[in-house]
Amino acid sequence: MPLLPGEFELIERYFAPLARGFPGAYGLRDDAAVIAPAPGHELVAKTDAIIAGVHFLPDDPPELVARKALRVNLSDLAAKGAIPRAYMVDLMLPRTLDEAWVAAFARGLAEDQDEYAVHLIGGDTDSTPGPVTIAVMAFGEVPAGRMIRRAGARAGDTIYVSGTIGDAALGLEALRGALPGLDARVAGFLAGRYRLPQPRVALGARLAGLASAAIDVSDGLVADLGHLCEASRLAAVVESSRVPLSPAAQAVLAARPDLIGTVLTGGDDYEILFTAPAQAPGVPGTPIGRMEAAPAGVTVLDRQGQRLALARAGWSHFP
Amino acid sequence: MPLLPGEFELIERYFAPLARGFPGAYGLRDDAAVIAPAPGHELVAKTDAIIAGVHFLPDDPPELVARKALRVNLSDLAAKGAIPRAYMVDLMLPRTLDEAWVAAFARGLAEDQDEYAVHLIGGDTDSTPGPVTIAVMAFGEVPAGRMIRRAGARAGDTIYVSGTIGDAALGLEALRGALPGLDARVAGFLAGRYRLPQPRVALGARLAGLASAAIDVSDGLVADLGHLCEASRLAAVVESSRVPLSPAAQAVLAARPDLIGTVLTGGDDYEILFTAPAQAPGVPGTPIGRMEAAPAGVTVLDRQGQRLALARAGWSHFP
Repeated sequence: MPLLPGEFELIERYFAPLARGFPGAYGLRDDAAVIAPAPGHELVAKTDAIIAGVHFLPDDPPELVARKALRVNLSDLAAKGAIPRAYMVDLMLPRTLDEAWVAAFARGLAEDQDEYAVHLIGGDTDSTPGPVTIAVMAFGEVPAGRMIRRAGARAGDTIYVSGTIGDAALGLEALRGALPGLDARVAGFLAGRYRLPQPRVALGARLAGLASAAIDVSDGLVADLGHLCEASRLAAVVESSRVPLSPAAQAVLAARPDLIGTVLTGGDDYEILFTAPAQAPGVPGTPIGRMEAAPAGVTVLDRQGQRLALARAGWSHFP
Repeated sequence: MPLLPGEFELIERYFAPLARGFPGAYGLRDDAAVIAPAPGHELVAKTDAIIAGVHFLPDDPPELVARKALRVNLSDLAAKGAIPRAYMVDLMLPRTLDEAWVAAFARGLAEDQDEYAVHLIGGDTDSTPGPVTIAVMAFGEVPAGRMIRRAGARAGDTIYVSGTIGDAALGLEALRGALPGLDARVAGFLAGRYRLPQPRVALGARLAGLASAAIDVSDGLVADLGHLCEASRLAAVVESSRVPLSPAAQAVLAARPDLIGTVLTGGDDYEILFTAPAQAPGVPGTPIGRMEAAPAGVTVLDRQGQRLALARAGWSHFP
C-alpha cells in the first residue's frame, strides 16, 4: 500500500498553492511555464540537485531539506548578480515516505518563497526505488550583459568575501561528534550554518556592475577561489588572518588552531567570493587578499606571511 | 575504487563540448547560464525526470536513455507551440557505473542536439546510492502570449492528433513478452516507438496561432484528453475508428482486438493532441473527435457509435 496519494493530488494539495503568485506558472495545471525577463534584462538559469545520504541526512526535517535544495541554487544566482524570480523542482520520493513529509517539504518551500520573493513555476513528482532526490532549477534576472562571471577578475583586484567563512564546515564536524566539549550554543550556531545556507541575495543584487568576478563558496573558500583564478587566468593571494570568522568559529579555532584548514577548505559556506578593483569605494564585503598576474593557483598566507600548507583544496562529489 | 573520474573531469570531457554552440552557457565553466528570448518572445520552461527501473530499464543503452530524457521534455515544449532552444541536465549516477556509460550518454545527447537544434547550458553531476536518475529542464521560445494552453479549447472544436497512437504501449507489451508470436519486424517497430519518443517539434512550431489547446500524449490518449477537457471545462467525444494507427498496431489489433484499450490509454506516445476550430483549413493532424459543452469527461465511441468501456484512463507514477 503506498502511503502517498497520487501525483495529481500531491501537486494540487501541496505544490499548486506555491505557484499562485506567478501568472506564467498557470497554477501548475498546464504542461509548461512561461517566463520572460523584464525589458533590457536576461534570465540567469542554474540547477543543482541534492540527494538523501549524500547532501543531507535521511532524517533531516523536510522543511530544512526543501529550503536547502532551493537555497543552494539561489546562492549561485546571487553570486552572479541575479535577482531570483522563479524555480522548478523535480521531486523523486521513495514509496515509504508519508504525506506528512511532503506537506512539511512544501511548507519549507513556502517559507523561503516569502523570504526570497520567488515562485514555483513547474516540476515533476516521481516514485523512486532510491533515496529522496531533489533537483531544483532556479531563474534570476540581470540587466542584459551584466551577469557577473567567474572570468572577469583583473590582476591587482581586491578579493572580498561576504559574511563569515568556515561555520558550516565546523558545524558538520560538531554534528559528527568530532568537536567534544564544545559549548552547546556554539555548536548549535555552527550546525545551523551547515544545515541551512543563507544565500546572499540582497548582496548579489548590489554586486552587478561593481564586482569584476564572483562565485559562491560551496566547495570551500580555497577551491572556489581556485575556480575563479582558473577562469580569470590569474593567481590569488589570501591573508588567512583577514578571512572573516564568526565568534563561534573563533572560539573553536582558539582551542583547535589545527582546524584552520577545515575553515578555509571545508565548503558549504554559501557566501559570495568576489573581486573588485582595489580603488573601488564602499564595496560591501571583507577584503581578504588580491589577484595577481600569475597563471593560476591560490596561496594562503598565515599571520607571519608564511605560506599555509593545506591538506586539501576542497571537495567534489566524485570520488 | 570509483570507476568514474571526478565531477570536473566528467564535465570537461563529456558535457562542456555540448555547450559550445550557446554563448550564454560559457562552456559550462561558470556557475550559471544566461538565456534570453528573442525580442517579442517568451521562454517556455519544462522539467521532467526519469529514473532507472521506473521509466527505463537499468541496462537500456545509455545513448537511448539520454535521448529519452531529453525528448520527453522537448515533446512538452512542442505541444505548447514552443521552439526548443536549450536544456540543462542533472545526472545522478551510482558509483558502479563506468566512464563508458557517461561517454555513451553524452553521445546520445550530442545526436539529439544535432537533430533538434538545442544546446546544453548547465547541469549538475552527483554520485547517488540509488538508481541512475536524470532530471532535464528544457527551454523553448514562443511569440509573447502565444504558448498553447491546455485551457483554450471551445465547444465545437475538432480534436486532432499527430502521428499514430498506441505503438509505444504495444511495444512495451511486446518487450514484456505479452504478445507471443508477433512478427519480429512489427515487434521491433513497436519497441522502438516505446524506447525512443519522436517529439513533434516541427509540428509544434506550426501550431502556435492555429491550435486552440494542446497537450502531449504521455499518460495515454484518453487521460491526456481528459486533462485538456478539465482545463478547458469541456467534454470530448472521440471516434475510436478515426484514431490513427500504424500498420504495426493495426496488425496487432487484427489478432488481438481486445488491445484497443491499451492503444487508447497506454501512454508514451509523445504525439501532440490538440484542438482547433472545426472550420479551420489545412490543419496538420488527424481529426479524431470533437469538444462538447459538458462539464468534463472523455467518451470514446466504437465503430458502431457505442460507448467503449475502458478499464483505465491512464496512469500516474503514484501509486
